[in-house]
Amino acid sequence: MLKLFTAKMTCAMASHIALEEAGADYEIATVDFGRNQQREPDYLAVNPKGRVPALVTDRGVLTETPAILVYIAQTHPDAGLAPLDDPFALAQLQAFNSYLCATVHVAHAHGRRGARWADDPAAWEAMKAKLPDNMTQCFRLIEDEMLQGPWVLGERYSVCDPYLHTVANWLKVDGVDIADFPKTADHFRRVAERPATQAALAAYG
Amino acid sequence: MLKLFTAKMTCAMASHIALEEAGADYEIATVDFGRNQQREPDYLAVNPKGRVPALVTDRGVLTETPAILVYIAQTHPDAGLAPLDDPFALAQLQAFNSYLCATVHVAHAHGRRGARWADDPAAWEAMKAKLPDNMTQCFRLIEDEMLQGPWVLGERYSVCDPYLHTVANWLKVDGVDIADFPKTADHFRRVAERPATQAALAAYG
Ligand SMILES: N[C@@H](CCC(=O)N[C@@H](CS)C(=O)NCC(=O)O)C(=O)O
Ligand SMILES: N[C@@H](CCC(=O)N[C@@H](CS)C(=O)NCC(=O)O)C(=O)O
Repeated sequence: MLKLFTAKMTCAMASHIALEEAGADYEIATVDFGRNQQREPDYLAVNPKGRVPALVTDRGVLTETPAILVYIAQTHPDAGLAPLDDPFALAQLQAFNSYLCATVHVAHAHGRRGARWADDPAAWEAMKAKLPDNMTQCFRLIEDEMLQGPWVLGERYSVCDPYLHTVANWLKVDGVDIADFPKTADHFRRVAERPATQAALAAYG
Repeated sequence: MLKLFTAKMTCAMASHIALEEAGADYEIATVDFGRNQQREPDYLAVNPKGRVPALVTDRGVLTETPAILVYIAQTHPDAGLAPLDDPFALAQLQAFNSYLCATVHVAHAHGRRGARWADDPAAWEAMKAKLPDNMTQCFRLIEDEMLQGPWVLGERYSVCDPYLHTVANWLKVDGVDIADFPKTADHFRRVAERPATQAALAAYG
């Protein structure tokens, strides 16, 4: 059985929803960010990066959301969560996920995790101040250039959809109104309504 | 024919080397960062993100290094650049590339591109000051936990290898001595010696 290490409101929720969509045989273990459990020796033994998600499989531990999402799709082909046999379409899926991971998630992280990139508290404040602008710029690009609709890749729901939903869920705390992006707001609602999303979210109480 | 938009010393060189390794039918177009050509309308029409790499295919433009690398591997199966049919091994490859993309590359970018995340020049200086520490921490993890040797994924050369080589090539300007990481330094030399790497690098003069 798969085991996903996850925490509320983190990027790990994308993998969690994808496991539900796939009908996977899995359990979750929640990591308590409130007491920085992700940096304790027990968790570092699972994932030396000290981050979630981490997916424990019978062959070892996998990390990194884009990697885990394609793994879930590839090991549950009946769920049709990725166009695995079409290299161009798969690359579009991956490009979308990579943009969320390396640009949008990273932009968001500057709001709370400035200490990763600077030691000076004044610099953390400067990063926090630029956060709404940066998230707005990212979602402008997603809205205008990337989100094909109704799903990220068009007619077919894929692992991009729970990932976008998870990241869009951060807009509020980042000081951005999702209503400024009508396609994204509509997408957010439709992912939220899916039984798999509701089942995953219910686990966090 | 494929066309790769690239620039010297950027992450796009990973895709360039991979195209050579694959024996792909491709050409390159170099983007002049000296005069910020990546932000001019002509280039934004190719890639609205204003970044390299961008790979023009007969079905459209692909961006994001991890996506392009798997695309090259999947469209050139004879080169054996990725374990495409082994979901766990492919996920390990992807996790490695995702870490380079979202953590190591991003850490490096704080040395020169602080304006992405803060408007205050003092904050840029604070980010620059933390750069050697951050790159050291990243390469400590790569050296101790990730690089299996002799290649990133063990016995088989894969698209992870030119990507690691490309990112390790930044250590010098980031104020870190690659000799502190003997496995990584050895890997760097062995990738540099490969004819495909030399052919790609020669294109930048
Ligand atoms: N590139 C990784 C990033 C993982 C990551 O940064 N996770 C955050 C939660 S969204 C985390 O665990 N942060 C804990 C910390 O920084 O202490 C991925 O996409 O999975
Ligand atoms: N996540 C993207 C990042 C691409 C990226 O940031 N490329 C840099 C060069 S290493 C760039 O084009 N920078 C130009 C700029 O910031 O103006 C990838 O991995 O391909």
